[in-house]
Amino acid sequence: MQATTVTAAAPLAQVQIRLGERSYPIAIGTALLDNPATWSALPRAATALIVTNTTVAPLYAQRLQAALAGRYGVIHTVVLPDGEEFKTWATLNLIFDALLQHGSDRKTVLFALGGGVVGDMTGFAAASYMRGVPFVQVPTTLLAQVDSSVGGKTAINHPLGKNMIGAFYQPQLVVCDLDTLQTLPARELSAGLAEIIKYGPIADMAFFGWIEANLPALLAREPAKLAHAVKRSCEIKARVVAQDERDVGLRAMLNFGHTFGHAIEAGLGYGAWLHGEGVGCGMVMAATLSQRLGLVDEAFVQRLTALIRSAGLPVQGPKLASTDNAGRYLELMRVDKKAEAGEIRFVVIAAPGSAALRSAPDALVRAVVDACCA
Amino acid sequence: MQATTVTAAAPLAQVQIRLGERSYPIAIGTALLDNPATWSALPRAATALIVTNTTVAPLYAQRLQAALAGRYGVIHTVVLPDGEEFKTWATLNLIFDALLQHGSDRKTVLFALGGGVVGDMTGFAAASYMRGVPFVQVPTTLLAQVDSSVGGKTAINHPLGKNMIGAFYQPQLVVCDLDTLQTLPARELSAGLAEIIKYGPIADMAFFGWIEANLPALLAREPAKLAHAVKRSCEIKARVVAQDERDVGLRAMLNFGHTFGHAIEAGLGYGAWLHGEGVGCGMVMAATLSQRLGLVDEAFVQRLTALIRSAGLPVQGPKLASTDNAGRYLELMRVDKKAEAGEIRFVVIAAPGSAALRSAPDALVRAVVDACCA
Repeated sequence: MQATTVTAAAPLAQVQIRLGERSYPIAIGTALLDNPATWSALPRAATALIVTNTTVAPLYAQRLQAALAGRYGVIHTVVLPDGEEFKTWATLNLIFDALLQHGSDRKTVLFALGGGVVGDMTGFAAASYMRGVPFVQVPTTLLAQVDSSVGGKTAINHPLGKNMIGAFYQPQLVVCDLDTLQTLPARELSAGLAEIIKYGPIADMAFFGWIEANLPALLAREPAKLAHAVKRSCEIKARVVAQDERDVGLRAMLNFGHTFGHAIEAGLGYGAWLHGEGVGCGMVMAATLSQRLGLVDEAFVQRLTALIRSAGLPVQGPKLASTDNAGRYLELMRVDKKAEAGEIRFVVIAAPGSAALRSAPDALVRAVVDACCA
Repeated sequence: MQATTVTAAAPLAQVQIRLGERSYPIAIGTALLDNPATWSALPRAATALIVTNTTVAPLYAQRLQAALAGRYGVIHTVVLPDGEEFKTWATLNLIFDALLQHGSDRKTVLFALGGGVVGDMTGFAAASYMRGVPFVQVPTTLLAQVDSSVGGKTAINHPLGKNMIGAFYQPQLVVCDLDTLQTLPARELSAGLAEIIKYGPIADMAFFGWIEANLPALLAREPAKLAHAVKRSCEIKARVVAQDERDVGLRAMLNFGHTFGHAIEAGLGYGAWLHGEGVGCGMVMAATLSQRLGLVDEAFVQRLTALIRSAGLPVQGPKLASTDNAGRYLELMRVDKKAEAGEIRFVVIAAPGSAALRSAPDALVRAVVDACCA
């Protein structure tokens, strides 16, 4: 009888998220998903549940299940409808139904196989099921790999606001298999690039320069370049999150472009624009606001706008109302989670590579919206 | 102009819950609710939301609102339907709707004014709204004062199981105003006594003796006696919770009587029996199981049963199925949160004043159910 050799997973890069007893690693590489060694450090349990969606399930669900088969006695899969518009309680409940129907106990491990919506919902389900069971993120979109991988933010939407109901809850492990990005639609690749580009103006202009230089390779999905982009983004985000896990201060700077972006997403109805598209356009608007506040110059705004455009993202805001468009943006931004007592707090660029929080007079915000909208 | 004197709230007793940065005090006394000084250490915020129910609102909501008026600019109240059967997502959503309709921000303070259902739902709403806002417990039932006050367990029910969806989330403050117990129906007073009695067999037989001696005074709602009973119960629970905040070990002993009790509640349909009634009867069944396992003697079971009966609680289990009643109990207990891989873990009395976790052969559990049911 021959000894079986299990080839160790060899990630191209690894980032350790340091949050005390809630620390966990992010593995970034190719051919990770199918390799049982990728999952060898996870806690054992009688059952596991793979949560995925109708788009991702046919591509990767069986492969993940096969790789996990030696670790869990029973592995079930629940397939959610695909799209931000399904990030609701009703969809979340499909996960709870599956867990309870299969008699899942408190050690059951949840695997989020998909993009940000699957990750956010699976994370919140894991945080809430029996008041908390372990979960693993297997993000299959570029956006999810750089955004949901770090920070432990989980949530569902409420008809009156995005991500209004959720929890801070950390995964046991995140596995970013870059091979899954090969099947990603171009529009979603661009949406992921928006969050990667974001780390330039708020934290690291050298990285911004690297993105400018390597944008064609990133758009061509070269694994080594993608690995670096994902790794550097996770590193920067991890540094911020480690200092502000519960999002009470510093972490707000990660929302550069998000206040305007959320207004666009909510105003058009969730799902019309991708989150990354809202953020891309939102960054142009927030940079314009920064410029009008006298913080950065016109050249910086143009450089940022050019990169966002080259990444395949919208740089002009949509009309959200036919009569008072700017008023509608203001109205939507006032109910954003980041607003306090109705005052909108904008993430602005204090200087290239550094972000700050600022309020701004309504008139100035109106001028920015008018200048940036079609 | 005269200086205004605010009389300091003088609780009869105080228990400090020590959970590091999540520590908080429990104030126990009379005339606390109306006294602005009771609330003087709470964080200030633009808005507060009182969550209560149709029974409690007419009695205390305006009084609490008046006492809080100096502290929060705007105080809204949301009134939920009363009853365990409303401990659902649909009812929870009424809280989220109110928060969002009023534009509540991340500093908004939630006040849970009512019994355990209001407390569990308000706590979970606070844990989840914008991923966490502060909340205060103002329990108005004896059960909630001794049970929900300590431990940070919040949850809603799922059609397939009780408290299946929730979070561990600690309040800023708990205020047990014993005056509110004067309006409590006798049946609910008894239900609260069930959880108080519980602390005897699992932790403190001297306290058990004190309850036996003071039961008439407790049933007559004498504030000084109630204060001691609430304080001692909270102290014992706090000691256990401090060692096991996330309920992974020791804390299980607090569920003495709950495995059988949950089966009764679920089997009859939530709301038919009060939680405390299920626990009271469940303790008789769990003590009987302990005796049949050779851990305690018949006299102990009889002494416990007598006190539970004297407290006005049921001591005989209901029939949950006409043909295989014991089988139905087993089936319901196997889907309990505490079960692991389908194995039921019973809290038994290892010796009077000390609890332990045990599995038991189905045949023995069947014999116990048969012996304890009508």
